[in-house]
Amino acid sequence: MIIYKLLGAKRVGVSMKSRHVTGCMIIIGNEILSGRTQDTNLNYLTKSLNEAGVKLVEARVIPDIEEVIVATVNECRGKFDWVFTTGGIGPTHDDITATCIAKAFDKPLVIHPEIAAVIRQRESTEEAMQARMLMARVPEGAQLIDNPTGGPQGFQVDNVFVMAGVPMVMQAMVDTLDKQRLQGGEPIRSRSIGAYLGESQMAKKLAVIQNQHPEVDLGSYPFYRQDGYGANLVMRGVDEKELEVMQEKVRAMILSFGAEPLESE
Amino acid sequence: MIIYKLLGAKRVGVSMKSRHVTGCMIIIGNEILSGRTQDTNLNYLTKSLNEAGVKLVEARVIPDIEEVIVATVNECRGKFDWVFTTGGIGPTHDDITATCIAKAFDKPLVIHPEIAAVIRQRESTEEAMQARMLMARVPEGAQLIDNPTGGPQGFQVDNVFVMAGVPMVMQAMVDTLDKQRLQGGEPIRSRSIGAYLGESQMAKKLAVIQNQHPEVDLGSYPFYRQDGYGANLVMRGVDEKELEVMQEKVRAMILSFGAEPLESE
Repeated sequence: MIIYKLLGAKRVGVSMKSRHVTGCMIIIGNEILSGRTQDTNLNYLTKSLNEAGVKLVEARVIPDIEEVIVATVNECRGKFDWVFTTGGIGPTHDDITATCIAKAFDKPLVIHPEIAAVIRQRESTEEAMQARMLMARVPEGAQLIDNPTGGPQGFQVDNVFVMAGVPMVMQAMVDTLDKQRLQGGEPIRSRSIGAYLGESQMAKKLAVIQNQHPEVDLGSYPFYRQDGYGANLVMRGVDEKELEVMQEKVRAMILSFGAEPLESE
Repeated sequence: MIIYKLLGAKRVGVSMKSRHVTGCMIIIGNEILSGRTQDTNLNYLTKSLNEAGVKLVEARVIPDIEEVIVATVNECRGKFDWVFTTGGIGPTHDDITATCIAKAFDKPLVIHPEIAAVIRQRESTEEAMQARMLMARVPEGAQLIDNPTGGPQGFQVDNVFVMAGVPMVMQAMVDTLDKQRLQGGEPIRSRSIGAYLGESQMAKKLAVIQNQHPEVDLGSYPFYRQDGYGANLVMRGVDEKELEVMQEKVRAMILSFGAEPLESE
């Protein structure tokens, strides 16, 4: 089934099982690609998006290279309803995200007075102030994203949210995005049941259940523990009733093999 | 500067500071995008790639949707020297990676006798065996990737390595890729020095040092601790001598501000 962008002007085919408001995350940072830093922002963001009814359908990790950032932002903002970037909005030479977003939208960079005011609250040497003031630059017309940690704000241009990479700051920014601003659909719910059963044993029956409920994603994730192996069966969708029906079928399937359904695994 | 694929027949421009053998990781799995699972495979893979002299320059997280997987694999295998996929090679309905790789390369899926032999070593019911035998399917002509954990192998088609998503299995597979198979350049080395100095204080001098050594990436990563804030300065490149020279300049810069260089942060 093909769905189309709900919010944008363009109609772009995105293949999904169902019609959802879609999100894409762009993680900007050499430190993730080099292995120095383990990203945790994707996991935090997507949990908030589930609540907001925005389905994260792709994420990309890209380096601090202007052409790559500009091209990726332009591709993704056309393909998905909402785009979220993290990283590259600090005061050093490798912080080029604001410049790249301005280029992607073909807008000039301007000093935003509200960010400049926040920056001036903390005293520093003239040289350091000059560097910090780079963080006040946003593409013309950008709306701010509050930063409850007290540092410079993030910003939004059209359907692109630009946030910090430091998890503490990124999380604070994400938490300020309310439903008025980040329009989504129904919240995306998930249910999970585990069982000490091999995936292969359940595979055929799981496929039957999935086919009966194409609007709910049914995933099977194996685990290996000291007391044995098994799998967690995860259902994900927006319709609570359908989720319950599917959950009941999964439970019955597990019992049919003589195993115990492990709830909320 | 534009670099070209070193290993492939096609010449594809990839914008990088320097000429490197490039890698791209494709993480296939709804469970990462939904927030259920925190990916750790990227971090593991890229550390191995550093040693092999392959620079991970992009990663994508995509859902278990055939058209998306096929399109992403085809885009990335043309753009980068090496592509590494994780996830979707189990025995259940949501494990569609082998099928998608075969479609991407327009090759038939065949049962690989060596994988089938591994699968038959473990007894199971006929129904479970049928499901497990799905894991023996590879695109025609694929080479195997050993799986030291004893389960079914991964496989390689042209410049694409297809590996498991379960970290224990994925890591075991990555560890089997030797330099003969995964041709890279010089190992990518990194040096790091921390300091309790604000990024903005150092920004101007860091930019000067970066400009003097365009072949080495110099990144600045802020930290916030109970005893104060500061930044780690990370240098990354292949030339040990140049790394040492840059490291000495960074050390001197930190001392010039009256702070202590924190080695190996």
